[in-house]
Amino acid sequence: MITTNEPLSVERMPGAPLIITKHSAAFWRVTLDNPPINLMGPDMVAGLQRLMDIIEADQELKVIVFDSANEDYFVSHFDVIRGGELPQVSGKLGVTQWVDVSNRIHNAGVISIAVIRGRVRGIGSEFILACDMRFASKEKATFGHLEVGMGLMPGGGATEYLPLLSGYARAMEVAVSSDDFDAETADKYGWINRAFADNELDNYVNNLATRISGFELPALQATKATILKRAGGGPNPFEIQESSNKFFELYQRPEAQALLGKLMEMGFQTESDTESRLGHYLGTLASK
Amino acid sequence: MITTNEPLSVERMPGAPLIITKHSAAFWRVTLDNPPINLMGPDMVAGLQRLMDIIEADQELKVIVFDSANEDYFVSHFDVIRGGELPQVSGKLGVTQWVDVSNRIHNAGVISIAVIRGRVRGIGSEFILACDMRFASKEKATFGHLEVGMGLMPGGGATEYLPLLSGYARAMEVAVSSDDFDAETADKYGWINRAFADNELDNYVNNLATRISGFELPALQATKATILKRAGGGPNPFEIQESSNKFFELYQRPEAQALLGKLMEMGFQTESDTESRLGHYLGTLASK
Amino acid sequence: MITTNEPLSVERMPGAPLIITKHSAAFWRVTLDNPPINLMGPDMVAGLQRLMDIIEADQELKVIVFDSANEDYFVSHFDVIRGGELPQVSGKLGVTQWVDVSNRIHNAGVISIAVIRGRVRGIGSEFILACDMRFASKEKATFGHLEVGMGLMPGGGATEYLPLLSGYARAMEVAVSSDDFDAETADKYGWINRAFADNELDNYVNNLATRISGFELPALQATKATILKRAGGGPNPFEIQESSNKFFELYQRPEAQALLGKLMEMGFQTESDTESRLGHYLGTLASK
Repeated sequence: MITTNEPLSVERMPGAPLIITKHSAAFWRVTLDNPPINLMGPDMVAGLQRLMDIIEADQELKVIVFDSANEDYFVSHFDVIRGGELPQVSGKLGVTQWVDVSNRIHNAGVISIAVIRGRVRGIGSEFILACDMRFASKEKATFGHLEVGMGLMPGGGATEYLPLLSGYARAMEVAVSSDDFDAETADKYGWINRAFADNELDNYVNNLATRISGFELPALQATKATILKRAGGGPNPFEIQESSNKFFELYQRPEAQALLGKLMEMGFQTESDTESRLGHYLGTLASK
Repeated sequence: MITTNEPLSVERMPGAPLIITKHSAAFWRVTLDNPPINLMGPDMVAGLQRLMDIIEADQELKVIVFDSANEDYFVSHFDVIRGGELPQVSGKLGVTQWVDVSNRIHNAGVISIAVIRGRVRGIGSEFILACDMRFASKEKATFGHLEVGMGLMPGGGATEYLPLLSGYARAMEVAVSSDDFDAETADKYGWINRAFADNELDNYVNNLATRISGFELPALQATKATILKRAGGGPNPFEIQESSNKFFELYQRPEAQALLGKLMEMGFQTESDTESRLGHYLGTLASK
Repeated sequence: MITTNEPLSVERMPGAPLIITKHSAAFWRVTLDNPPINLMGPDMVAGLQRLMDIIEADQELKVIVFDSANEDYFVSHFDVIRGGELPQVSGKLGVTQWVDVSNRIHNAGVISIAVIRGRVRGIGSEFILACDMRFASKEKATFGHLEVGMGLMPGGGATEYLPLLSGYARAMEVAVSSDDFDAETADKYGWINRAFADNELDNYVNNLATRISGFELPALQATKATILKRAGGGPNPFEIQESSNKFFELYQRPEAQALLGKLMEMGFQTESDTESRLGHYLGTLASK
């Protein structure tokens, strides 16, 4: 959350764990701030959906940077306790609220950049994958899709976005290993654009966003739309919805409920060593 | 072939150069063992097809690791002398036996991992590409598609699998250079998931396979099927068959026969310096 | 432009800034030579189109290497002053002359390799992307798509070729950053096959081209055609034309004309610090 100049405004979105900083009319920053471990729950998803309404209505915005108020957790993962509160039909496409958010960020008429420190797992990874670009701290970022180790599957876009970037083999390793990966491996796999030394990361992203904010919006939009269209048409919201449905099917199996129950006893969803080293602990669950 | 625990069983498949080691009901290892240079001939292809029958019928298996008994040759290449013995129609799809094997490994309801030491060329590379993931020894693995240098083309899946992982430009370099590549380049090109220092390779793969063997099979299967489907539908057996037909067309040209004749005189298909440095020797053939 | 043996012939194409060196009947080199900054103008595009006529009619050619006579500029970019002279309909497909050239290089029955020293930007990058492979000097090559910073978009193939190689996220960064990238980043992003130390680059490319020139043409052609077909059908000339039309639409906006006007005052299209560090200067234009 370092910037070189004094921002125009810094405001918390009412009722949502999001801080909106306007560096200029064309360059905003949105900071995820849901202590203690930045869970992606109903308030954050609903806040992001309202953010998309605001972004889509704005005439001057060109680039938005997403970061986290918590250096240990960009986003821990989906809030499985409060997950049931999320609207199952939301937005114009008749998809779930999360799929609507993911699809609207991906296709927005502004450029989106995620800058990552801390753990980013599950739906957190799916959030950054929906952005146009992502850059991470070599020292401080950790990446994981840990759904399979809980008897689930990635259901919020990872199976759609990641194979386009990493190829099927590396996406498969990420998902079925259900383990944590460091930023250099995420960089090699195309999961992120690039990993930077922590003390270079903000400079790169701020310079990039500042450049973009000075460019012509029609040029940015034509370029973005064409690249997404050519890359296999880009991920399809209805395909993401299909994966999301599969996720909920698996979630209802007693085996998944039993695994989640074990995890809860171990401190899952709280600030704990289990959350901190979740990839490691998932490898030990089967024998418990 | 290092594992941490005593396996349940180690058996040679009758009539096939394959050793099946069961580390647990959920985690098997299959070791390719066709001395002296691990040629992929009719017995190995037929053995792999029978292995797929066994795998598809098994209810407990979740993950299978493929390795080689020979540290110098994972698989040298297709046995061009005995190649004619392979059934031209085999399996339910009406494709050749190899295309059937390749397609069934790729779409199997278990996770497949290749761990590579030694040379892996031609159909050997196509075998590992059909697996879900592949990891190789930085010091000991060598990769090549050397068909073009023999007047042929890759005809067992490489033109289908590799461009999805490496992009067209690097697949083109691999195939038309008809030369050997080291493990670090294979890693950069996405030909493998990752190269590891030789003394770390087994630990990584055994830990990965052990993790997977403890996970829920429906979660693994839903994840694998979705990733393969999203990655452009995945390689198609009928497209592989088309490339295979093209391979045999080229094979029948007198120019290809002449090149193969020269190679035979130089020790091709035997334990020889020609096999050891085949990429190098192919660059010298035109002037002979 | 280093080769080990005396070439058969070295000739300048009449009326075009292209030098054709025949190392053998099967291996030609084409050197781009349009001083002082190797602009891609009407003469170079027309020359490349005539080159394609020659290549398509030749029966012995197998591989062509493209390099530059200028170590500082492989190709600076499109000549925006003389761009209007280019035929809008050219070749059999009814597309513009550049799209015709790009499509014919990409689908040619010979293997094309670009070897890059110096800056390669805009249409220069689109030229090398149309080739089958590209290798660059770690020390001397610089890559950029700087169209967006001029109020334009890449309109000569980059939005089609690059996402297939780099994925959408890295193609997006390249295009909307409108900045210069070094050869190691271009290597990581798949923009090029590989970066080599400057003193190793020619050896690698000459050895590769020499190997290819000794191989069977039907094997090379079947391999190339299959790989291009499998990689998503490969970029489509009509899609490139669509992007090209969008480029010209943006070009006619007064905002783009104003940006180009400012650049002209700063020494754009001449041997100047503006051309040398164009990525840098584009970041300063908005505030001028």
